[in-house]
Amino acid sequence: MNAAGTGSPPVRVDVGEREERQLAWAYLSRVVLGPCPALTALIDSVGVREAARAVREHALPQVLRDATARRRDVDTAARDLETIHARGGRLVTPDDAEWPAWRLLGLAQLLPGRDPDGAVPLVLWVRGERNLSEFTERALAVVGARCSTGYGDRIAGEIAGELAARGWTIVSGAAFGIDGIAHRAALTVGGATIAVLACGADRPYPAGHDRLIARIAEAGLVVSEYPPGTPARKHHFLARNRLIGSLADGVLVVEAGMRSGARNTVKWARRIGRPALAVPGSVDSAASAGCHRMIRDGEAVLVTGTADVLAEVAPLHLPCTAGSESSGDGRPSGVAAQILAALPDTGGRWPHEIAAATGMESAEVRAALVALDLAGVAARSDAGWFRSDRAEKGGE
Amino acid sequence: MNAAGTGSPPVRVDVGEREERQLAWAYLSRVVLGPCPALTALIDSVGVREAARAVREHALPQVLRDATARRRDVDTAARDLETIHARGGRLVTPDDAEWPAWRLLGLAQLLPGRDPDGAVPLVLWVRGERNLSEFTERALAVVGARCSTGYGDRIAGEIAGELAARGWTIVSGAAFGIDGIAHRAALTVGGATIAVLACGADRPYPAGHDRLIARIAEAGLVVSEYPPGTPARKHHFLARNRLIGSLADGVLVVEAGMRSGARNTVKWARRIGRPALAVPGSVDSAASAGCHRMIRDGEAVLVTGTADVLAEVAPLHLPCTAGSESSGDGRPSGVAAQILAALPDTGGRWPHEIAAATGMESAEVRAALVALDLAGVAARSDAGWFRSDRAEKGGE
Repeated sequence: MNAAGTGSPPVRVDVGEREERQLAWAYLSRVVLGPCPALTALIDSVGVREAARAVREHALPQVLRDATARRRDVDTAARDLETIHARGGRLVTPDDAEWPAWRLLGLAQLLPGRDPDGAVPLVLWVRGERNLSEFTERALAVVGARCSTGYGDRIAGEIAGELAARGWTIVSGAAFGIDGIAHRAALTVGGATIAVLACGADRPYPAGHDRLIARIAEAGLVVSEYPPGTPARKHHFLARNRLIGSLADGVLVVEAGMRSGARNTVKWARRIGRPALAVPGSVDSAASAGCHRMIRDGEAVLVTGTADVLAEVAPLHLPCTAGSESSGDGRPSGVAAQILAALPDTGGRWPHEIAAATGMESAEVRAALVALDLAGVAARSDAGWFRSDRAEKGGE
Repeated sequence: MNAAGTGSPPVRVDVGEREERQLAWAYLSRVVLGPCPALTALIDSVGVREAARAVREHALPQVLRDATARRRDVDTAARDLETIHARGGRLVTPDDAEWPAWRLLGLAQLLPGRDPDGAVPLVLWVRGERNLSEFTERALAVVGARCSTGYGDRIAGEIAGELAARGWTIVSGAAFGIDGIAHRAALTVGGATIAVLACGADRPYPAGHDRLIARIAEAGLVVSEYPPGTPARKHHFLARNRLIGSLADGVLVVEAGMRSGARNTVKWARRIGRPALAVPGSVDSAASAGCHRMIRDGEAVLVTGTADVLAEVAPLHLPCTAGSESSGDGRPSGVAAQILAALPDTGGRWPHEIAAATGMESAEVRAALVALDLAGVAARSDAGWFRSDRAEKGGE
């Protein structure tokens, strides 16, 4: 589970070895073109360079022979890395501290047999200067109808703009309609936004949004699990939707027709434990019909504005369950205790701040915070992480 | 529990005795002006004439002394009965076959200590020619904002009109806004409607709806638990709302502000086990804010039109729980078995039709159907009552 685990810090490698490993990840990314649980398992088991060698030589179990046969002889890894670098980007892999392992925990816990499309991504091709993990510490996905109405556009713009102004990152899919409005609202207030694409990160899709995607790559991040040049294919959109849900604390749908892709994003969000929210509208509006159906069926919570959204995705106290990251007397120990000591009782502190204060790696801090949250001794508000009530009781 | 029970048929009395009992009920109705659980208990115990004598003579336990002291010397019973008769009305009491005991079961099961305002009504003053029990066999309450918008008016009119045209009775409070629209929509399609007032049934309240209330009294029913001439008081409206919920199969709210009385009606509906439904609208509309809040908090189910409403209030198969109205081998016996035999396997039959076919009293049929439903062997659809799946299995 190295690829998705949060318990172990990222692998440290020297420059030459790092380059070799990047080439191996890039090669494998083009061979499988998307998530491949069997390949991830092989890499976890033998390492990425040995896995790449096995794929090249077809020395594989049957399940991987089929998945890799078609493109195993295509090695454009060096050119792909050059292409993404030339576009101000990079290849982010589980080797990197930037790898958002804590964000991908939900996907890592899905059963590959039940959710073949729900696997942890192999790699992420990223354009933009921001650190992907830090950029998603506090993030909301805002998605919705391509054929949105003036009503939906206005509500999406208001909520995305208000949350971006409060320091939230707006994650969306760069599509026409609600997606584009949400990205633009974040950019307008000088806020953070991430576009997750169903094609290579170097390709503007849809073409009509080429300028918008260029602006997002400058001010925020453009993310894809497909190597440069990959065209958008139908099944890529469904896989992309799971990443939108994974990279955010919750998914907000502002307008969705009955067959909208936003409903697929909500399905993924629910499967990986993220709250799904939907904005109601006139019962006459076909653009609200999908939202109404999801609310009625209990798939999404009705929200009417920013305050409702914050109440759902950043509650003052997250639900607590008994945890395992503690010593015999119920108190956290080791790294967890250090991080807990660095948390304020009131207000909040973000993982990268705690990392700076304690000298730990951000990835390590994030993983520990998730464990402390599960143990009920830390919680997160709109202002950051803090010690929760049960921590105080536990300390008495 | 005679006043609210469904197990025993209404009391049979001769004409002279009936008149005396009517006078006693009318006298007590004016003494307590609304529901009075302690008085209902006394009547259940000693009978209505003996209870009236005890009230007149102040020969009462302390709890009833206080509740009756103020008006025990006021006896306008004969005049009140004349007034209601002159207005085409009558006093309906638990003595009468028309008394909607099955509709009031939910109220009868509330704890008087916890819900002092939730008691079974003492009597109902009714104007209109229709039989109250038959008229509420298939009924939907449609309530909402007094300051409704064009949007809410249109949706309320559509749903109330469509349901009334299908044979449903529309129950509401004759207020301005959504209430009035719902009544008018039912009248327009020649359908059934009931206005439940917070003042005497002879008084038009609000005054601006005097013509509407007169039309309802002609074509449908105007109902009040207060004697003629009683003015509408603030606490009457809250008590009235519980009756609106009781007399219907569910409560639909079309537009409600955050402080709307419709939310009180929904509270009662939920307390007595009726589904509560709400129509969403623009998040900008203050007239939809109460609906959105109720949907968000899980107090009401989101509905977008008539089909959604029918799915909630007239499901093809009602939820089943183990019942007690059966003989040792699990099959219904006696009256219940007779009524079950009169039910169709497909389609449906209404209680008054079953009563006509079997020669039983409608009230008896209704009470038995509720028990058969609880036992899981009968269920109700939009087309009437039918034998449910479990009945067929039980008969094998």
